[in-house]
Amino acid sequence: MKARAAVAWEPKKPLVIEQVEVEGPKEGEVLLKVVATGVCHTDAFTLSGDDPEGAFPCILGHEGGCEVVECGPGVKGLKPGDHVIPLYIPECGECAYCRSTKSNLCQSIAATVWTGYMPDHTRRFSCKGQPLFHYMGCSTFAEYTVVPEIALAKINPAAPLDKVCLLGCGVTTGIGAVLNTAKVEPGSTVAVFGLGGIGLSVIQGAVMAKAGRIIAVDLNSDKFAMATSLGATDTLNPKELSGDLVEAIKEMTNGGVDYSFECIGNVNVMRQALECCHMGWGVSTIIGVAGAGQEIRTRPFQLVTGRTWKGTAFGGVKGRTQLPGYVENYLNGQIELDSMVTHTMPLEEINTAFDLMHEGKSIRSVILF
Amino acid sequence: MKARAAVAWEPKKPLVIEQVEVEGPKEGEVLLKVVATGVCHTDAFTLSGDDPEGAFPCILGHEGGCEVVECGPGVKGLKPGDHVIPLYIPECGECAYCRSTKSNLCQSIAATVWTGYMPDHTRRFSCKGQPLFHYMGCSTFAEYTVVPEIALAKINPAAPLDKVCLLGCGVTTGIGAVLNTAKVEPGSTVAVFGLGGIGLSVIQGAVMAKAGRIIAVDLNSDKFAMATSLGATDTLNPKELSGDLVEAIKEMTNGGVDYSFECIGNVNVMRQALECCHMGWGVSTIIGVAGAGQEIRTRPFQLVTGRTWKGTAFGGVKGRTQLPGYVENYLNGQIELDSMVTHTMPLEEINTAFDLMHEGKSIRSVILF
Repeated sequence: MKARAAVAWEPKKPLVIEQVEVEGPKEGEVLLKVVATGVCHTDAFTLSGDDPEGAFPCILGHEGGCEVVECGPGVKGLKPGDHVIPLYIPECGECAYCRSTKSNLCQSIAATVWTGYMPDHTRRFSCKGQPLFHYMGCSTFAEYTVVPEIALAKINPAAPLDKVCLLGCGVTTGIGAVLNTAKVEPGSTVAVFGLGGIGLSVIQGAVMAKAGRIIAVDLNSDKFAMATSLGATDTLNPKELSGDLVEAIKEMTNGGVDYSFECIGNVNVMRQALECCHMGWGVSTIIGVAGAGQEIRTRPFQLVTGRTWKGTAFGGVKGRTQLPGYVENYLNGQIELDSMVTHTMPLEEINTAFDLMHEGKSIRSVILF
Repeated sequence: MKARAAVAWEPKKPLVIEQVEVEGPKEGEVLLKVVATGVCHTDAFTLSGDDPEGAFPCILGHEGGCEVVECGPGVKGLKPGDHVIPLYIPECGECAYCRSTKSNLCQSIAATVWTGYMPDHTRRFSCKGQPLFHYMGCSTFAEYTVVPEIALAKINPAAPLDKVCLLGCGVTTGIGAVLNTAKVEPGSTVAVFGLGGIGLSVIQGAVMAKAGRIIAVDLNSDKFAMATSLGATDTLNPKELSGDLVEAIKEMTNGGVDYSFECIGNVNVMRQALECCHMGWGVSTIIGVAGAGQEIRTRPFQLVTGRTWKGTAFGGVKGRTQLPGYVENYLNGQIELDSMVTHTMPLEEINTAFDLMHEGKSIRSVILF
């Protein structure tokens, strides 16, 4: 079938709206109509060319709110009309990671998801006769896309897809990092570095975990109003400090925070986030994705004296099992999404969404098809 | 009073046996007769001059088995004749660390312990009119020493002091790292890097935790017999590998170990120990003490894909509360110490203990006074 899509022909170039061909679903696959999709920093990261796994030409996008159009052979749990969120980390239910209570990193189709293919090593998109790569197993910057059933979370159809699409990546990642990975406890002191969609969601997660103090850190003070409205108790702009950021946080918190979260992808900030943690028990969680080849570093003394360094992908959330509950928590008011959608636009204006992100003017732009 | 002691007059020089003056105990302090003391790598590290906190001249030694001789005013829980193990990390019972269930890093007297003074900022040792620094709050390379009551674990007097002195540092650190810090679970796969006193004790801890597989790694294959006798199931000498150590361990373990422990103090090995952990849930614990200014590094991807980097000091053991239980576990056969004491000697031959350690010929030498 034909579909409109924003094609990334090559790195560092604007996306181009094209008419693409979408092949129907094969065994275990599902054809989806994308109703809405968020535009995330990870899309921009791949488009920048810095992502070593980025394969071009491709259709980016991984924060989708979708409706099932057609199920391929063998699909058992979905039917046309169901509402779903595509998962860039699937949940097969059978691999060692799915069987472990400690991990959400299902590896059943990782080899193809991260190289731009469907699980059978073929592709479903082409444009002008040229095959296009899939992206993170989702490719939601297209009117129609094809995703394996094991990478689809079936959600409450009462939920507005143009809002809960954000649960496909950033918001779930931030909240899950707090609840699943760091396991923040009531009364804890929390520091959040970077107030994009993920950092703001960490604040939401910290509020849900009943943290006693939430320190929001960003170089752009314009972000502080939103952070405060979501529950941050303190804000800190490193540019406005005369001294060292780590020392400032330690002074504010009687020796350091109990939990910190890096939501930027900057290896120097990752170090600061670790070192501002309290000796004896502080836990720092890396959420941001650093550029290829970049390394974190610290003195081992930081760990020997009781700090823990962790990381998280998709907030440790097992998508098919847990994501429907996040949608319910949005519907019952525990998770705030509406105010995080600062801009909406048709697919034709998707490059504006990237511009707004780079200018720090949007939290999330949502594309409405 | 007069006492024989091994004095470290300056870094990089052999210790000198001297007649020293020991002042009696002040408020809250206890005068101890040192019956036996282990010689640990940390003593050698400070003597090497690489320890930025090393203050000379001093009396080294921190793995003591002692008897109470005299209690200063205010000492409530001890009396002459009690058997005790001095603690380089005290347990005041009142500070934030002692009140936390997550940390053993009591800070009540840290400012003086790590600068070579008693809590009242004075010293109790002198030699030829010159005051000597204390070391790690213990200074067990002397016939008599003075230690605050909050840094003394009272133990079962039935336990032989020339064996349980090892519980004052290395053995407890290794076992505690497994049980308290990493919390190894039954059936887990464990890798231990470095088979000195600490690494061998990690193996003991892993056996106590019912680990399913214990991989012992060392450049010196002479260490493997002892490792195996304590419970290691596999041994690995990186010098005998044609390829990369991390890849070799991943191949042996279907993707990596569940838990790893660095027991050397080498920042490159710390990285290997982290990276040989299994994606999704692997936990690496740093026990070794690196040289001043050295840093650990890795790609943040290692953490984002579910590995955790931790560290431990004294195995997370709260000394006064928990160490007496370790002594009981030695007495009831759960902890092996006898075979770890490979050499004994009088104080006069203490420099031989350092030589044996540097030559890799001893696990622990114990000085008998």
